[in-house]
Parts: sequence; structure tokens; C-alpha cells
Amino acid sequence: MLSFESDYTEGARPEILRRLAETNLEQTPGYGLDPYCESAKEKIREAFGTPDADVFFLVGGTQTNSTVIASMLRDYEGVVAVRTGHIGVHESGAVEYTGHKVLTIPDHEGKMDAEELDEYLTAFYADGTYEHMVIPGMVYISFPTEYGTIYSKAELEAIHSVCHKRSIPLFIDGARLGYGLTCEANDVRPEDLPGLCEVFYVGGTKVGALFGEAVVFPRRGAPAHFFTTIKQHGALMAKGRMLGLQFDTLFTGGLYFKAARHANEMASLMNRIFIEKGYEVFIDSPTNQRFYVMSRERAEELHGKVRFEDWCPVSEGKIAVRFVTSWATPEENVLALKEII
Amino acid sequence: MLSFESDYTEGARPEILRRLAETNLEQTPGYGLDPYCESAKEKIREAFGTPDADVFFLVGGTQTNSTVIASMLRDYEGVVAVRTGHIGVHESGAVEYTGHKVLTIPDHEGKMDAEELDEYLTAFYADGTYEHMVIPGMVYISFPTEYGTIYSKAELEAIHSVCHKRSIPLFIDGARLGYGLTCEANDVRPEDLPGLCEVFYVGGTKVGALFGEAVVFPRRGAPAHFFTTIKQHGALMAKGRMLGLQFDTLFTGGLYFKAARHANEMASLMNRIFIEKGYEVFIDSPTNQRFYVMSRERAEELHGKVRFEDWCPVSEGKIAVRFVTSWATPEENVLALKEII
Amino acid sequence: MLSFESDYTEGARPEILRRLAETNLEQTPGYGLDPYCESAKEKIREAFGTPDADVFFLVGGTQTNSTVIASMLRDYEGVVAVRTGHIGVHESGAVEYTGHKVLTIPDHEGKMDAEELDEYLTAFYADGTYEHMVIPGMVYISFPTEYGTIYSKAELEAIHSVCHKRSIPLFIDGARLGYGLTCEANDVRPEDLPGLCEVFYVGGTKVGALFGEAVVFPRRGAPAHFFTTIKQHGALMAKGRMLGLQFDTLFTGGLYFKAARHANEMASLMNRIFIEKGYEVFIDSPTNQRFYVMSRERAEELHGKVRFEDWCPVSEGKIAVRFVTSWATPEENVLALKEII
Amino acid sequence: MLSFESDYTEGARPEILRRLAETNLEQTPGYGLDPYCESAKEKIREAFGTPDADVFFLVGGTQTNSTVIASMLRDYEGVVAVRTGHIGVHESGAVEYTGHKVLTIPDHEGKMDAEELDEYLTAFYADGTYEHMVIPGMVYISFPTEYGTIYSKAELEAIHSVCHKRSIPLFIDGARLGYGLTCEANDVRPEDLPGLCEVFYVGGTKVGALFGEAVVFPRRGAPAHFFTTIKQHGALMAKGRMLGLQFDTLFTGGLYFKAARHANEMASLMNRIFIEKGYEVFIDSPTNQRFYVMSRERAEELHGKVRFEDWCPVSEGKIAVRFVTSWATPEENVLALKEII
Repeated sequence: MLSFESDYTEGARPEILRRLAETNLEQTPGYGLDPYCESAKEKIREAFGTPDADVFFLVGGTQTNSTVIASMLRDYEGVVAVRTGHIGVHESGAVEYTGHKVLTIPDHEGKMDAEELDEYLTAFYADGTYEHMVIPGMVYISFPTEYGTIYSKAELEAIHSVCHKRSIPLFIDGARLGYGLTCEANDVRPEDLPGLCEVFYVGGTKVGALFGEAVVFPRRGAPAHFFTTIKQHGALMAKGRMLGLQFDTLFTGGLYFKAARHANEMASLMNRIFIEKGYEVFIDSPTNQRFYVMSRERAEELHGKVRFEDWCPVSEGKIAVRFVTSWATPEENVLALKEII
Repeated sequence: MLSFESDYTEGARPEILRRLAETNLEQTPGYGLDPYCESAKEKIREAFGTPDADVFFLVGGTQTNSTVIASMLRDYEGVVAVRTGHIGVHESGAVEYTGHKVLTIPDHEGKMDAEELDEYLTAFYADGTYEHMVIPGMVYISFPTEYGTIYSKAELEAIHSVCHKRSIPLFIDGARLGYGLTCEANDVRPEDLPGLCEVFYVGGTKVGALFGEAVVFPRRGAPAHFFTTIKQHGALMAKGRMLGLQFDTLFTGGLYFKAARHANEMASLMNRIFIEKGYEVFIDSPTNQRFYVMSRERAEELHGKVRFEDWCPVSEGKIAVRFVTSWATPEENVLALKEII
Repeated sequence: MLSFESDYTEGARPEILRRLAETNLEQTPGYGLDPYCESAKEKIREAFGTPDADVFFLVGGTQTNSTVIASMLRDYEGVVAVRTGHIGVHESGAVEYTGHKVLTIPDHEGKMDAEELDEYLTAFYADGTYEHMVIPGMVYISFPTEYGTIYSKAELEAIHSVCHKRSIPLFIDGARLGYGLTCEANDVRPEDLPGLCEVFYVGGTKVGALFGEAVVFPRRGAPAHFFTTIKQHGALMAKGRMLGLQFDTLFTGGLYFKAARHANEMASLMNRIFIEKGYEVFIDSPTNQRFYVMSRERAEELHGKVRFEDWCPVSEGKIAVRFVTSWATPEENVLALKEII
Repeated sequence: MLSFESDYTEGARPEILRRLAETNLEQTPGYGLDPYCESAKEKIREAFGTPDADVFFLVGGTQTNSTVIASMLRDYEGVVAVRTGHIGVHESGAVEYTGHKVLTIPDHEGKMDAEELDEYLTAFYADGTYEHMVIPGMVYISFPTEYGTIYSKAELEAIHSVCHKRSIPLFIDGARLGYGLTCEANDVRPEDLPGLCEVFYVGGTKVGALFGEAVVFPRRGAPAHFFTTIKQHGALMAKGRMLGLQFDTLFTGGLYFKAARHANEMASLMNRIFIEKGYEVFIDSPTNQRFYVMSRERAEELHGKVRFEDWCPVSEGKIAVRFVTSWATPEENVLALKEII
């Protein structure tokens, strides 16, 4: 059955499989100490204009989030996120498992508001009992958000500036980074990112790789012994070159961005179809995740013909649903969807 | 340069790459809820003669160890291992990071002795202050061990019987399981394993897969909500089918065991060469890891010609070194080694 | 300066100090294995009509909360509390430090609503992605709440019944239990409590002891090895008899309840005075914590004459403040307050 | 029955009880923000000649160890201790519960050898795989040790110097500090301690207080937000002045050292009696814990007449036993022991 369920239903860009096959019997050192990882790191530094960045490869998103967050917080600190942030909802408490609270503030279609963050932090330190509470030690946002929305450069600057004022690092979850950076509405350039946060990652799993997330600490900013931390979190691949090869391929000839742009184009096409068909847009996402409102009956009926996700109840008898395109979505699938909906 | 450094220097059995390519653009649900995972689980149940086993796929060894151990211990419990056990030495404290102590007893060429385990547990409960100590809640052994040695069936039965007496589960780390089960000296059949422990895993990373470990809980023995536990540990692959496809391939036509047997044969050949050349055997391993004693100068000289690992100092001026073959080692490499050493 | 800042500003009921002095040079075994602890446990079992309860003594409230919660949750579980619950706000993330998330639902003047709890749990399990979330494994409420309010017996039964339906234990934080059980509005008898939850504690620190909380697991319900768990949490007193002596004294001749009742009477008197003086009641608490609304200027002015706590902003220029009486508050202090406000 | 079982069988120096009674109904702020804590801190700074030290009061030893250690280690670090160190044996894994491994090296009658520590650290960093292991981040010793033995000033300097070389802090567990500093064989002055380590604590529980440990970070060396860390560990007393009052009393007129000296004198007297009676000394401790060898039968027989602890088996049919005096041991008890043994 046709699926618009998520952007991780297919394998990988064929260039990656080719590369794996070509190098299959080469012998390289383990744990990321191979030439492919080195090359991939160099290409990522170049693509994001951050020549002195520390780059590490991990396997998946939840793993990356909890490893990075735990590595940058002291025991008494928590991480501030919006109520809908992935770390606070759909990671089975992975952050809490490492001992840290996720401190939540409201979201606006998945986004954090710099002013509200500022107010939260100001109120926190104004509270006479704050030493009995969890100290905010990091801010986490995702780009794009869990709702497919993106921050403008000015919005990121505003959030980062609040963080700076309090000397706490900003972490950008880029599980779908490519989709954010290549969508039409976006004004953030790849080379802007290193100046806008203390750490971000370049999601591979959802953007053309079999798996893999590249964590970038600009300005040689990796926490001490981050390699050991990765190992301690069970996140170190023995055959680390699998990660290096994938990112090296994705960052050769701009493949990563090309793959992402394709998904966005398919999403725009899909969106035009939904609108033509008279569906109500739930959240006006500019990236590859799109949200529509429909009756429960309609959703039920469609589930028999195409895979997609029920998102949340909206009102009596109505729900929001999510349709997602990916780097691999063929135009014909989108057109087929037209017939179905 | 020729490498006998480890069994994770190459990629994967070509059948696996082929399978990945063939299925690349199929759309399947994430997180292991796809038909390939189902099929692989069924084949593993069959191969190990345990039709009602719960089977889960994780990515790497350290991750699997800490996830399984934490899931089966209560907070006040620790895991008993020999002094040389991987979890206590080379996993960056991943087990302690989950809050549990690794309780150590002596090893014998990497192996645990059932009688010593019994004495340890007896002494523990005889100690009037034991409630102020960490309660032993699980026993961990590896098969083969970190020294390439294996347990006989009788030895495993003896250890398991001590565990039973104390009502604590036995966990067998099978990161190199294939090499153990297919070596000549072995008398443990795959279908014996489920009766000899409460949980074991079938290592893929070191035995022909790109990555992946299949955890097997015989007798529907998985801890409640183990799926959520995997997610919490950052060990859940989004594209879970990558794991299913690999294990499905390895457990089709006995490929897993064939791949392992090849490594053992190459190791035997290599061993004959070392002995012919007059090298002293450090530990008489029957599997794919082999250990020899040589002078530091000799080792230094060889490092210029072939990759291998210095293992430990043995005596004044002498060290033990490790040479490892893998499922991918071509006979010509072993013969080339003959010229070098 | 006169203080109505909290119920832990004074030492202990004089009977306790007398008892400590009388027994001072006796030699008893450590860690609570002394006859005073035994006697105190027996008296607590009797007072709460629960002859087969397991009783343990800990030192303070946050410590008791995190120790009990961690001991009853599995790693993948979290504890449900209202948004204002002490564990989620003023315990520096002690629960998260043990690896567990505090899952919050709305409060109503500090109280949990059984129906909302039911809806929360129903929605949780109805969510197709719940296995990616933190599993609710316990419900936490406080009696009285952080706002001094109490639950009726029917309300407790309703909450407990929801818990039963989901097979999750109910934990009642009784840091101020005495004040709740002895206030006029209360209809819960001490001997009702064991049937209304799986674990509760009898707060000593705030109700007449120097320190100490008595944890009661009805129906021999203590988690296995709870003694070791207490030690592991750094919560085991070497001279455990200090706790036994205090609770033995408090549960001799009903001293605990007498002490609590006094505080409630002083709070009622105080409340009449506030109302006479025309102050607006913020939350109509029936116990020893009382909340009033006043202008910021008025509060500022009063801070120069009497100690009390600013609670929260209410509206433009107005705040809620908290005045607390204790087992030790002399009537003359309340009358003196009359002159001040 | 007469007891030489431990130094925490009695209550407290009577001066302390007097002080508690005198101040009982005073109202002071909670959490250690009272004048008694301030005064006690100042007196401790003076007694140890460290005017700019940060001082904090906690309740018990295990709690203090795990709180201090966790606060000074990063997640990837462990604490080095001798095999017999209290944290690795009798604290129910409290350190591991906070996520950190206790790394052990051999002991010599309970003591760490500076040279062996140096060798351990040198070997660690020389190991090519050290990034896969737990990084040593702190050294823990106890003074006196669990065997009653003490370090000379030169020995402490040597250990501290090894720590300095590796930039890792030295932590001195002073649960019995008074007994060490006041014994005849000792050459360490209180004012030497701040220069010999990065943190130590002054044990109250075992040296004349009802409970309490004073943690001293010389050179304003407390970790950031240590107050919050204490709270997070459930180690913050609501009525913090109980701790302040006790330490203020103990550090007025040298009472702490006087109390400790008395125990040492009683231990010397006891030792002369044991030697006169022909008992074999197991470990020649100069402090208040003394160890003798006797036959199991003899020990069994004595257990019927006096309380003491069986320590460990020594040889066929022989065991070592421990007899402990305290600040409260009357001379007549020691003389009574003479009749018994």
C-alpha cells in the first residue's frame, strides 16, 4: 500500500548502497577511526562553513539527543524544550533516564518563542526557591520542528541571544535538517547554523541515509572525552565507517540537500492537491510533513487505501492527520494520492 | 596493509548488501515492525530450537549488554562477571551508567568457574552485612570469551545450575557466538543454548553483518515493555528492517554458521603457521581470536608489516599479541602472513 | 521576628528531646535494628490499623519521595502527579535523577481529579505511539497538598480505583499527614489510609519531630530489599534509633495527632483574624497552611514585621502569600499577628 | 550487654543535647540558612585553618560520599579507591547508582599506595584502548581507613601529588576523621588537611554527634550549585540548624578532638589488655578500631558475653574480629572487657 506515513519507510539513496558495496571488503580500523569518517567530517565542516568544528557520527535521533544533552549538562541541570519537543514526548524518557529533567514551556505550532524563553528564565532566577528546583542548563529546539515548521534566522538569533545572556548552550535537533534548510520559506543558510548554536546535528536517517546522525560542535566545542561518552551510551558503532561512507556520499555534490529538496517539492505538490480537494490545512508547514483536518470517518476510510498517521483530535468528530514525503517519494505516488483522497 | 586486528574491519557478507539493494525502495513500517524482522525472528527461533522465544534486534554489543542488563536488574542489584568480562573493562562504564555495579570474580583464560561462582554467592549471603552491599542479580558470561575460549556444555550447565539455585538469570554475551558454536572444540549445539540461560544474543556485527545483535529471550522471557526499554536506551533503529534483512539473510541456508566456520578454519591455518614458525601460544583459543607471545622488538617490527593488537605484557620484554580472522579473511591473506612472520 | 514562614522553623516536641536525653548513652545496634524502631513501627501499625504493614524510617521528605518512587518503578516507568506536586517542582529533580520522568496532569487547588487521571491513562493507552513514551507506573498525590487542601475519603477512593484499574500503585506523600488527618473538614480516618493506597508516609519533620518520615507499606507490601535501597539512596541513618525514638514518642498517647491538631486550631484562629481584617482568601485550605491575597506594597510592608512566604502573583499588583502555623505555634503569636496585619 | 561493636551505638555528647533543648523553640529559616550553621561553618574553617573554604552539612557518610563524588565527576569518569574502600564495598552501590564506576587498586591494610596509584594511572593512559574504559576522575581515600590505619603527612602528600600530576581531585572520607587526627601515631595537623586534598569531610555521626558530616571544600572549591545537588540527592535537612548546632557545639572549645582523643585512649588501654592476654593483633591500628585474631570457637564464646564484629576469616579455624571504642566508652567498660576476654 502507498505510504505517506513517515520519511523513514525506505532504505537509502542508491549512491550509498553503491558505495557500501564498492568498499565492502576493505579493511579499516573500527569506531570511526577510518578515512571515510575523516573525509565525511571534512565535507560536513565545509558544507556548514565551520572549519574547526568537532564532528561525530551516531546512529539514531533519540540516541543522539540523550547523548548530546547528557554530555553537556551537569547533574543538577535540566534541558528546556517546548511542550511538543521530541525529547519530552516520544523518546521513552531517554533524557530522564540519564538523570535530567526536561523543562517545558509552551510551543507555537511546535516552535519556541524567544521572548517566552526569556520570561521563563527570568522568572526562574527571580524565584526565591530556585535552588530547590532543576537549573536550566541547555535549550533544545528542533529544526524543522515536530510539526514541520521552521524558524527564521531572526528567530534563531533571538533564541540564541537569550541563551547567551544566561550562558547556556543552544542545541538544535536536526533530525530533518535537510528538509528545513532546503524548503522555500527558509532563510537560514547552512553556514549560518554554526553561529546560531553550540551544537546541532545533521540528520541522515530521515534524509537519504540508511541511518546516521552527524553531530557538529562548532568552534572545537565538543565536551571533553565525547568519544568515551558515545561509547558509554552504547552509541559507538564498531564498523564506524558505515556512518562515514554514508555522510561522505551525502555531502558529495550536494546530494544531501538535493535529496531533501525533492521531498519538499513532492510535499508542495501534495499540498496543492489537498487544497484543491478542499481539505483544511491544520498547520501550515513549509517542509515535508503536512497536516490536514478531516472527519474521523474520512480518515478511517482513507486508512484503507493509503498509509498516513492520525495526529491529534481537533474538535468533535474531527482529527488532524499527517502526510509525509521523503527523499524517495516518486511523483507518481503523489499523483496516485490525488486519486485516493 | 594486511590486517588481523579484529573481526569488524570489513563490511558484510555480499548476500546482505544484495538484499539491501533489492529491497531498498520498498516502504515498510519503522522500528522493527516490518515483515523482514518478523521473518528473521522466526528463522532465529528455528535455528536455536526455541519456538516461543522473544527476539529483539539491537545495533551493537555494548548497547545490547547495557540494555539487557539494566532491563533485568532491579535498582539494588548488580551483575556478576569475571574480571576480564567485556562489560567491566571495555564498555566505558555503560553498565554503571545505568546505575548497576559490575561485581567481579576471577577468570580462567576469560572463563568463569561454576564452583567459584557458587562460593562467591554463598559467601555473599553468609556475610552478615550483605544488605549493605550490592545484591547479585544476574550472571554475565561471554561465549566465546574475550580470550577466544569457549565453555563446554557441562560447564554452562554447571554455571546455570548455580544461577538457578539463587534464582538469578544467566546472560550469555554472544557478540562472537557464531565463532564459538562452529569451532571444532565446541560441544554446545545452537538448540542447547535456550535451555542454558535466560537470555543470550546472536552477534551479527562481528559475524558477517554490517551491524546488529539479535537478543533472544527463550520461553517468552522478555522483560515487560522491552520495546520501550530499547527506545529509552537510544537503541531502537528507525529503519528497523535493516536489522531484520541482515539477520534474515544470515539465517537463510545457514549462512551465519558458514561465515563463522570459515573464520575458524582460517584461524586454525594461521595457528599452524605460527606454531611452525616457533611462536609460543599465549592462550590456546579454539576460535577466531589467537594469542601469541613474542618479544616487544619482534612485535614492533611486525607492526610495520601487518595490523594486529598488542594484548598485554607477559614478562620482562615479552608481550602477548592478538591476531584475529573473520568471516571475510581470504586464505591468501593467511598465507601472506606466513611470509611476514 | 515572629515567623509564619513554615512548619519547620522550630525543633521538636519537648517529649522527644527528653526521650533522646534519657536514652543517650544506651548502646543499641545501628541502622534501625534497635528496640525503639521496633516499638515505633508497632505503634504506627496500630495507629493506622494495619498490623501486617512494613514500616521504614527515613530522614526527610524529598529523600523519601525519590527513594520510594524509584523502588516501585521499573526503569521504563514514570510517576503521574499534578502540575503542582512537590516532586515535580521543588525537589531539584530528585526523581529524574533516579531516571524517572514525572508525568504531569492539571491540579485543582493542588489536588488531582480522579476523572482527569482516568482520562489521562485512557488517552495514553489509546495512543498508538505509547510504546515510545514513558509508561505511567505509579500515581503520586500529597495529603494535604502543597496548597494545604485535602482529599475526601470518596475522592481518595476514586483515585485509588483508577489506579487499580490500571494495576499501578498509589503513593500518598504525607509530609504533613497529621495536619490533614486532624483538620475539621477531614473525613479520612488513619485506619482508612492503608486501604486507600499501596504506600504512604507519616511526616515527622513538619509535625513535631526534629526530622524523620515513616514509610508504611500496607499488606507486607514493601519492595524486595527495601533496606538496601534505602542505603543505596544514602538515606539510611547509622544511629537509626534517633528515628525510632521520635516516632515512638509521637505515637505514644496520640501525641502526633495532638501536635497536629494544635497547629490546625492556630490556623483557624489566624484565619478568622485575616478575614476579620478583610483579607481575601486565595485558597480555602482547611489545614495549617493558609493563603491570602494582598497588594505587593502591603506584602512588602508586612515583610518588615513578620516572616511569611510570597506564594505567587495573582493579578496586576497583587500576590498570594502563605502563612503557616505549626505544632509549636503559641496562641500569643497568632494574637500578636493580629496587631501586625 | 557490653558492646564494642561500633562507634555509633550511643547518642551524642551531652553538650549537644543541651544545646538542642535550649534552642528548641527558636524559629530559624530552614535548609541550613540559619545562624547556627553559619557559626559552625566559621568554627570549622578556623579549626582547619582554611578561612575561604566552602562548608556544607550533610546527614550521613554514604550519603556524603555519593553526593560529593557525583558532584565532582563528569558522567564518563569514575573514582579510584582501594579494594577495601567503603564506597566500593558497604554502600550498596550508592556511587554506581549515580552512574559512576568505582575503579579499584590494591590496599595495604586499608591504605592506598601513592606509587601504585601512579602506576595505575600511567598504565591507564598508556593503554591504547583507554577511551573505551572509564576515565579516572577522582581519587578517594579514607582517613582513618576502614581498618583503623592512618596515612602519614608524607603519604598524603605523595598521593596528592600523583593526583595533581593528572589534574584529578583527591577526596578524603573523614567519617572517623577525629580519631585519626588525635591518635598518637598521627603527624597530620587539622590545618594541613586543606592543602592535602580538594575536599574532605569531618565526620560527626561517629565522633560525638547524633548525626552529621561537615563537607569542606578548601579554596572556595565547592562545585557550582552544590546546594541544589544536596537537595537532588535527598540530603538536604529541612531543619538544617540541627546540623549547625551540633557542629557548632563540637567545634567550641575543641570538643570534637577531645571526644575523639578519649576513644583513642580507651582503644590503647583495650589494646594493652588484649596483648597482655596473649591475643594476636591482626592489623596494628593506632585509632579506635582494633583487630585481633582468635579461633572461631573463642569468638563464638565471646559473642555470648560482649558485642563485637567478626571481620574476616584468617586461616583454617581462625578469624579476625573487630573491637571498637567511641567518644562515649567509659573506662569501666574497657576494664570489664578485661574480665571477659
